[in-house]
Amino acid sequence: MHQLILNNFAMHIALAPYEQEQALAFFQIKEVKKRTWLLRAGEIDRYIYFVKRGCLRLFYTDKSGEDHIIGFYPENWWTCDIVSFFTAKPAVNAIQALENSEVYYISLPQLEELFQTIPKFERFFRILNQNGFELYQRRITSQLYKTAEERYLEFRKRHPGMEQRIAQKHIASYLGITPAFLSMMRKESGV
Amino acid sequence: MHQLILNNFAMHIALAPYEQEQALAFFQIKEVKKRTWLLRAGEIDRYIYFVKRGCLRLFYTDKSGEDHIIGFYPENWWTCDIVSFFTAKPAVNAIQALENSEVYYISLPQLEELFQTIPKFERFFRILNQNGFELYQRRITSQLYKTAEERYLEFRKRHPGMEQRIAQKHIASYLGITPAFLSMMRKESGV
Repeated sequence: MHQLILNNFAMHIALAPYEQEQALAFFQIKEVKKRTWLLRAGEIDRYIYFVKRGCLRLFYTDKSGEDHIIGFYPENWWTCDIVSFFTAKPAVNAIQALENSEVYYISLPQLEELFQTIPKFERFFRILNQNGFELYQRRITSQLYKTAEERYLEFRKRHPGMEQRIAQKHIASYLGITPAFLSMMRKESGV
Repeated sequence: MHQLILNNFAMHIALAPYEQEQALAFFQIKEVKKRTWLLRAGEIDRYIYFVKRGCLRLFYTDKSGEDHIIGFYPENWWTCDIVSFFTAKPAVNAIQALENSEVYYISLPQLEELFQTIPKFERFFRILNQNGFELYQRRITSQLYKTAEERYLEFRKRHPGMEQRIAQKHIASYLGITPAFLSMMRKESGV
């Protein structure tokens, strides 16, 4: 029942069965309907989320009111506004469900207790933070150095099948282009 | 002699005297002349640096060949291209000394051994990563949401006295404005 998240832990740390049990007890789980806000910009992000089923998006809204999607988080992905979560400052980003989803979540006090109980999790979350940083940096440098088509192919490679699950406007927002331009690009690349 | 870095450790973790000794043994130290490259874009970042004296800059160069400074790292600051260091992928950013400097540095194999020897350092570097992420995110959102003058005042607050130490062109590059505009802004704000 909890195999997905346990396998995810196992990617970076080795846990004995009793530690797996202990760890799971620090997480809560809930179902969220499509379009539910898990975080709004300006609020403090109280939770880190792990997606068991469905898909979330993390995004910010610029001065002109336009959304920019930083990432899509389907099954087996973690997300939060890392800075807001760990510093308890207002979030720059927002998190919303793009599908009916089921998520695990953990608060900072619970996480600190988990670190006390099973110190190996310091390593796990250090690595998650690094991965989050990498994604964030790659998002920014992709916008700087790559063409829209390269970014589109990168997206398809990272998230196979995602295109069929979410609205075109969200993919366009992730790529930093208009939906019309995305549609044109898809026709030209024959997909 | 190593008081600065020991005090820096103490900001996030409590080390017994013998652990301080053990930890220091994993770091090397060297002097670097002004303008020395500690990392060039495209290389793998082999080290994390802690500045004992002097000042480094972390920056990237855009498609048109223009430099964008992500941050200044004077005494008591850590820096590296986090993604390149932890993943051994080519660095997006470069690191250069802006003054004659003295730096501690540690490689990834040494760091992994430090984690084995004193697991508390997992926590220390998790927090450093978070702080690095926060700085990086704030840099990006500042460019999006704040005026050049607000960014200038933020810089002065974060780095008191730094303006007298480094070239105006570097401050302008950090603020994302031209040196001429920086000069005009300084006159207008009466500094």
